[in-house]
Amino acid sequence: MAKRIGKQVIEFPEAPCVISSAAVTGKTESEGPLSQEFDFSYPDDGVGCANWNEAEAELLYQAVDRAIEKRGLYRSDIDLILAGDLLNQCTASTFGAKDFGVPFAGLFGACSTMAYAMALAAVLVDGKGFDNVIAATSSHFCSAEKQFRFPLEYGGQRAQTAQRTVTGAAACVIGRGFEDIMIRRAMFGTITDYGIKDAANMGAAMAPAAAKTINDYLLDTNTEPEDYDLILTGDLGNTGTLLLHELLIDKYGWDLTPVHEDCGNLIYDCEKQDAHSGGSGCACSGVVVCSKIMRQLREESLRRVLFVGTGALLSPEVVLQGKSIPSIAHAVELRRR
Amino acid sequence: MAKRIGKQVIEFPEAPCVISSAAVTGKTESEGPLSQEFDFSYPDDGVGCANWNEAEAELLYQAVDRAIEKRGLYRSDIDLILAGDLLNQCTASTFGAKDFGVPFAGLFGACSTMAYAMALAAVLVDGKGFDNVIAATSSHFCSAEKQFRFPLEYGGQRAQTAQRTVTGAAACVIGRGFEDIMIRRAMFGTITDYGIKDAANMGAAMAPAAAKTINDYLLDTNTEPEDYDLILTGDLGNTGTLLLHELLIDKYGWDLTPVHEDCGNLIYDCEKQDAHSGGSGCACSGVVVCSKIMRQLREESLRRVLFVGTGALLSPEVVLQGKSIPSIAHAVELRRR
Repeated sequence: MAKRIGKQVIEFPEAPCVISSAAVTGKTESEGPLSQEFDFSYPDDGVGCANWNEAEAELLYQAVDRAIEKRGLYRSDIDLILAGDLLNQCTASTFGAKDFGVPFAGLFGACSTMAYAMALAAVLVDGKGFDNVIAATSSHFCSAEKQFRFPLEYGGQRAQTAQRTVTGAAACVIGRGFEDIMIRRAMFGTITDYGIKDAANMGAAMAPAAAKTINDYLLDTNTEPEDYDLILTGDLGNTGTLLLHELLIDKYGWDLTPVHEDCGNLIYDCEKQDAHSGGSGCACSGVVVCSKIMRQLREESLRRVLFVGTGALLSPEVVLQGKSIPSIAHAVELRRR
Repeated sequence: MAKRIGKQVIEFPEAPCVISSAAVTGKTESEGPLSQEFDFSYPDDGVGCANWNEAEAELLYQAVDRAIEKRGLYRSDIDLILAGDLLNQCTASTFGAKDFGVPFAGLFGACSTMAYAMALAAVLVDGKGFDNVIAATSSHFCSAEKQFRFPLEYGGQRAQTAQRTVTGAAACVIGRGFEDIMIRRAMFGTITDYGIKDAANMGAAMAPAAAKTINDYLLDTNTEPEDYDLILTGDLGNTGTLLLHELLIDKYGWDLTPVHEDCGNLIYDCEKQDAHSGGSGCACSGVVVCSKIMRQLREESLRRVLFVGTGALLSPEVVLQGKSIPSIAHAVELRRR
């Protein structure tokens, strides 16, 4: 049964497992460095749907469906779907999950949703009231641009600090058993607000949240960066990654560079794919963790990964009202058995 | 430790407790039948803030702050704040919770958020990784009208089936101990979709979700409506309540009328206050449960309450795209020790 270590970290002595995971993407992601990692990629971002919102919901449906089916589970084996996204009122999650006939709990953690959902799923499974819980999330470049910035037809220029929202969805089944990949610990982050007001620079808004969560986690667990094969943030991009390294050295005294990667930097070839500061969106860390990272853990090229999902908790309206952008980072520690 | 009974209900043998609760409202709510129940009501809905979004965040802050302080707790006693609201990207929750310096987990359950947050808080506290978890939610008539319908200045007429969004916020601290009020069981609902496309008739959209959750709960727990002093839905309003009673009799064979009340019917004097079909919004069931219902449980005029929070999981955009309105209902069973 779970116990708290330090101030905030939850440790699971009988660690919940990642039973299955799936990642589905759009076209641009299938042309990037991780093209071979995904379960399925659509040849165009319309996904055969009438509009971008429906397309995003379909991506979520596909990821959840594949995560269930690839290990021979039935829908009736799933006790709860935890899902969230960036759309207003999380409609991609609702419409993507509604046809499974499984209890549903909507989350809002912006781009931190994958780590947040995995952390929460681990706590729920550990508590014995649930056998199998799905953690899932989605985002779509076109639905996000329409909602947070400009309609694509406007053809607006994007700042070099801006990140490209990943088109895709990811899902994993968290349960009990003797699977290869365990969730050993989890931590829910606190909100940081460093006064960043530039909605085209999410990396700067989120870096302090990542730094705080990483520092709090290391202190609570009495570990150092070198104890991990990988500390993976998602999704700070180039700009946010530089700021994270600087903050961690200057404010907390940690040198993260030997073990750190960021999902926003992994998913695109930024120069060739015109992705500016890298990838973002709920699916960014979702599809990286639920494909490449899970494979590396299974193959034992990674044995201990601290996955820190980062989210900018803004709405376009609040930015226009002149408020700064609060951010959050939730963490899960993945271990090879 | 929690165990599942039946298909979906989680039972807590060492029941988590409601340590404290607080409800804060706007002016209209303080002029209704529950005027004497609330911790505090603002004399105007501006709440001294620059805009409606900030006003809603301030309401949430006040409810959380009062729930912590009224039982002499410190902020450092709180391990997690669970909160959600109806605004885009749940900004009332983020901005209302960010200054507490407490770990935060954002939820999306629309008007079901209070029941959902209480259910989740109970599971988390039961799992021993958390001592005290806050479940909180907010809504605001003016921020909701602006976002979901028309700006107030437009002066649009509202349909008789429409409900009035409650201006207010509610919070409760869920923890362990020997408090008067326990959470004995909880259930996360499945999404229903009966094809309702009228965004001015949320009661009709949500009634099937309430009916399904109530029926599933009664079957899983092998109980009947008469076993409860009160089955409290929030927030179906007049229209939705009639449909719920009809559905439960016709489809499931339960007569709910002797033990049923709805938060949307309790909060306003619909005729005198021009509230049409009753109250709605996340704060509707929130402020009713965290004031009157908690008082009645403490005073033992109620001993066993099944609280079923209902939520319509729509966004204005998805309605305009011609989609129907999926709904959900989450449940918690409150007991007097």
